[in-house]
Amino acid sequence: MKQVFEIKDKKIIKSVLDNAEYGTLALCADNVPYSVPVNFVALNDVIYFHGAYKGRKMSMIAKNAKVSFSVVENYSLIQSYFSSTEGLACSATQFFKSVVIDGEAVVVESREEKVMMFEALMQKLQPEGKYISFDEEAYDKAIKATAVAKIVVREMRAKFKFGQHLNAERFDMIVKHLEERGEEKDVETMALMHELKKYNV
Amino acid sequence: MKQVFEIKDKKIIKSVLDNAEYGTLALCADNVPYSVPVNFVALNDVIYFHGAYKGRKMSMIAKNAKVSFSVVENYSLIQSYFSSTEGLACSATQFFKSVVIDGEAVVVESREEKVMMFEALMQKLQPEGKYISFDEEAYDKAIKATAVAKIVVREMRAKFKFGQHLNAERFDMIVKHLEERGEEKDVETMALMHELKKYNV
Repeated sequence: MKQVFEIKDKKIIKSVLDNAEYGTLALCADNVPYSVPVNFVALNDVIYFHGAYKGRKMSMIAKNAKVSFSVVENYSLIQSYFSSTEGLACSATQFFKSVVIDGEAVVVESREEKVMMFEALMQKLQPEGKYISFDEEAYDKAIKATAVAKIVVREMRAKFKFGQHLNAERFDMIVKHLEERGEEKDVETMALMHELKKYNV
Repeated sequence: MKQVFEIKDKKIIKSVLDNAEYGTLALCADNVPYSVPVNFVALNDVIYFHGAYKGRKMSMIAKNAKVSFSVVENYSLIQSYFSSTEGLACSATQFFKSVVIDGEAVVVESREEKVMMFEALMQKLQPEGKYISFDEEAYDKAIKATAVAKIVVREMRAKFKFGQHLNAERFDMIVKHLEERGEEKDVETMALMHELKKYNV
């Protein structure tokens, strides 16, 4: 029985990407992997991020454009006694949403596309505005100096774990414990457990 | 001028690893990278994680033991107008702590070491106990069936960004805005900004 469920709904996946402040990029050159957290924005079915032209990210991409990118939204830690009647530790787990993307990084050369990316990134992280638009000449130097890349998605897998695999007894035990603990994250987790019950098997 | 400061203090780095619920593992086989979030525990200078013997993680490690592992603790988003007097977007950023580890993954075979790892992982995520000890026979099957690996660290870089590079005027502007916004994360961020001032250049 699967403990983790794959989500295919593109709107739901997009909302995970839009809510995440950062994702982790995995690169690989000469058979050496490198993981690095990046701020990013999902736009027009690609993932944009930026960096320094001479930094390790861009140097590795020049050698090997293949990338893997992952985003996590963590929910409640489920203590083992939340769902175990036998007292075993094995049932301890964490509920989460995750998106893992495999694809190829393409360096963005056009000023227009760079501007579009920066506008979208600002809109994501600073929706209240309060900054001078990127059309202004004041940004010319910064835009030229900053490398932008996009991940063209080859495969995207979204996995959610919210107890959809549990029988009613264990599911209800967890809900009871989350209610008792009652942290903000627990309240969100309970709402998602109920909403995602439709993925039950 | 560096915006991000490297932290060498091993105790501080350990506390970032101990506070993180998950890290992201980057693997690479046949020149294809793979990123995957994992729960983990840092113990005796290595990073332990677990998985399925026949899963993608362990299969890739069998082909190439080199791994990169990263952990992020995100703090306040710093809106551009928190520190820009000219209204430009470029000063928008995020304060964070990050640890990136490069090393080699070694599969753990001994039952003793596996038990030690599971105990440490439980202690990290469920410090209140309330489970039967891993010494019990009840776990024999689960321990045999679960693959455990450790990352032997070759290089570890901890980077913190808390405005240490800013001049006093901009630093104080940010503090004022964080005070005004006053979310829990902002209060923690301000405390760290002041604490980390000693890394100022």
